Amino acid sequence: MSIDKAIGALGQVLGGRLTTSAAERDSHAANETHFPPAPPDAVAYPETAAEVSAILGICSAHGCPVTARGAGSALEGHHLPIRGGISLDMSRMDRLLQVNAEDMDAVVQPGLTREALNQELRATGLFFPVDPGANATLGGMAATRASGTTAVRYGTMRDNVLALEAVLADGRIIRTGSRARKSSAGYDLTRLLIGSEGTLAVITELTLRLHGQPEAVSAATCRFPDAEAAVGTVIATIQMGLPMARIELVDEVMVKGFNLFHGSALPEAPHLFVEFHGSPAGVAEQAESFGTLAREYGAEGFAWADRPEDRTALWAMRHKAHYATGALEPGKRTLATDVCVPISALAEALRTAQADSRDLGLTAPIVGHVGDGNFHCGVRVDPADTAEMDRAAEFTARLARTALALGGTVTGEHGVGLGKIKFMEAEHGPALWAMRALKDALDPGNILNPGKMLPPA
Amino acid sequence: MSIDKAIGALGQVLGGRLTTSAAERDSHAANETHFPPAPPDAVAYPETAAEVSAILGICSAHGCPVTARGAGSALEGHHLPIRGGISLDMSRMDRLLQVNAEDMDAVVQPGLTREALNQELRATGLFFPVDPGANATLGGMAATRASGTTAVRYGTMRDNVLALEAVLADGRIIRTGSRARKSSAGYDLTRLLIGSEGTLAVITELTLRLHGQPEAVSAATCRFPDAEAAVGTVIATIQMGLPMARIELVDEVMVKGFNLFHGSALPEAPHLFVEFHGSPAGVAEQAESFGTLAREYGAEGFAWADRPEDRTALWAMRHKAHYATGALEPGKRTLATDVCVPISALAEALRTAQADSRDLGLTAPIVGHVGDGNFHCGVRVDPADTAEMDRAAEFTARLARTALALGGTVTGEHGVGLGKIKFMEAEHGPALWAMRALKDALDPGNILNPGKMLPPA
Repeated sequence: MSIDKAIGALGQVLGGRLTTSAAERDSHAANETHFPPAPPDAVAYPETAAEVSAILGICSAHGCPVTARGAGSALEGHHLPIRGGISLDMSRMDRLLQVNAEDMDAVVQPGLTREALNQELRATGLFFPVDPGANATLGGMAATRASGTTAVRYGTMRDNVLALEAVLADGRIIRTGSRARKSSAGYDLTRLLIGSEGTLAVITELTLRLHGQPEAVSAATCRFPDAEAAVGTVIATIQMGLPMARIELVDEVMVKGFNLFHGSALPEAPHLFVEFHGSPAGVAEQAESFGTLAREYGAEGFAWADRPEDRTALWAMRHKAHYATGALEPGKRTLATDVCVPISALAEALRTAQADSRDLGLTAPIVGHVGDGNFHCGVRVDPADTAEMDRAAEFTARLARTALALGGTVTGEHGVGLGKIKFMEAEHGPALWAMRALKDALDPGNILNPGKMLPPA
Repeated sequence: MSIDKAIGALGQVLGGRLTTSAAERDSHAANETHFPPAPPDAVAYPETAAEVSAILGICSAHGCPVTARGAGSALEGHHLPIRGGISLDMSRMDRLLQVNAEDMDAVVQPGLTREALNQELRATGLFFPVDPGANATLGGMAATRASGTTAVRYGTMRDNVLALEAVLADGRIIRTGSRARKSSAGYDLTRLLIGSEGTLAVITELTLRLHGQPEAVSAATCRFPDAEAAVGTVIATIQMGLPMARIELVDEVMVKGFNLFHGSALPEAPHLFVEFHGSPAGVAEQAESFGTLAREYGAEGFAWADRPEDRTALWAMRHKAHYATGALEPGKRTLATDVCVPISALAEALRTAQADSRDLGLTAPIVGHVGDGNFHCGVRVDPADTAEMDRAAEFTARLARTALALGGTVTGEHGVGLGKIKFMEAEHGPALWAMRALKDALDPGNILNPGKMLPPA
């Protein structure tokens, strides 16, 4: 293995688009959460799949690690080059290549962000619904199997990617899937690469499924006496088949964070933030049904956001939860958790998480995509305070055990990265052997994002 | 490799549930379409995952082929033991293990059929929507990534399986996925096994996503001056966001088959068969919108089926298309094709297929899940007539080329089996290398359904 030799060879291919400058290495060493900085040896900025292929061919030959990076908004350190080597920065491959309005699909490069895509789609009457909050790149979202507030209605990246172009570790460029809506032709490589966190291949193009912009949209917030009542409302809503576009839980601690961060004055009680999409009559009917149902569970303080600017403000508040969490104990970092459980177990999981954080003396506001049974506790930590870090680790371990005991998963949407590796054995058991076999088959030299996702055998 | 030694050892484990009788071997040698009979050396009837594990362990040790079999309704010969060995008949593992009504999921054994499941679910208000026509087993449907008439609304097996238990070639029992609605924890082994046609593992349990039985249902048929007009209606319907539960094309040749088989007297013109699910008001609104739209494309002869028995009759007709095809040239077999294209290319694909079948002097009625861009030509052939078989092979090759040239796939839902192997290279190119690498990693001895899906390297 020789990283230096790889860098020399890569310089021949990329010229000025390969850099070893300290500033670039530092900016590619950082992350949004609590992981220590991990600088690459060099940063590469490919512009084409052929260049990515050349880079991986060289890195394979020299055993040089390659860690692909989108917007750097990952919450589990996925993009940190912890073993050095190359940070493969996909930000220059950010074009919208094709919109096929009749088929409701689009072909994009991986460095395009979801907001930029939706901006470009605005005039078409179509949009891309997957919404993880951060303005992530579409390649990064596919690599982490991202979802977010709208998954309850429109699905996750798993459901909204039709096809991929990707480069394997040996430099081979493959195409998976097609623009057809479904296929039974062979192994589902598209789904295998979605959520593979850059450990099996580097995504260089995505064909995305688009959806029609809803004719009418209405959003609202309301508060509940306790989280159980909010969750009861969610379960009832889903069981009666109301096609909620968004249904988000915000607990009383998170509301306090919102108030501090945004200067708002919401009562510090559990809230649901909801949105309805459909025809004007349909949305009105949904909103009415939801209101009736929520009131049965004790909801009050309904605030409706029918104007676009009010909805934008509402969802901006929700999307800035990660930053608003920072207002709760300024100066600390946030350790983001991300379990997902069957919805019947959601109230118990939330109750257990809240009890655990109190018990361990931690500040851990909760926000959740509760229609999917997915929620996040943002644990505030001082990475220099080892006792607090230990308590936070105990909290996340308890939360993982709770989720698994209730039939759930340790990560609903953030992915494994560095943070969840320690729970992979508990979640997957013997299936981990199969995952390792797939990794060995496609990346025998372990050059693609090494040290992530799979624990050492 | 010693099949005899494997059979000896299997007899010790299974007793009378392993048989080498000629009658059983013959009944496991047959298929619904044109493939020649292929008897196994023995038939095994496992009753537990532990038994499947023991069987695969023994077969691995002796290099004995194992071909899993559900209802035997596959249309591409998937379940034919073309290299002999064991036909692993899953029909005794046919129990519904769990219904979690609050979470809208169910846990089933792979030998349970979709109709039996829905029968058992009747009182719960829930149903399993994936509907390939045949009363297939749920394990077989997962293995072939089946879909059918309702995929346009409810998705395919890819979308409706939450978790699996499966046995790998070496006998290792793994669990993939969980009852949580989504997860980002590692490689998507569930989706890798769905559609893998028994070549990577044998499915021994499935956790399925259920849906609420619609409050109101309405169905209708109407006819069009030509297939273009029908397809234009479909595209417009989808673009306006009408949540069609079913939208099926039946061409004039197929209508003739229906009339012969069912004694009906439908005008021999292209028809759409449609169904709407929702609230009573919603269904009425959808039906009205669809009717208006279809009439703009020249639809006439609307026949509404609002009573359950009328709908049952309507869909029984559609579901028996494979058998009704047999009425067109009695005594022949049907070679079922199954391409899927982007919906904007559907009219061209249909036109080309019809011209090709005329050109080649073949009778090939068309039915299609046209909301997904998926259609089937059922080519009538006499397997003993080599000239006709050659013309049929030319037809399927042309159809495959047409689908791929239009950005589609050679199989939307039937799978590869034996029939589509010859098109895998054209569809996947370099990605076929990755598929072979995955197969080698998980089944290095090539004992699982050998000779299917992947062409020789």
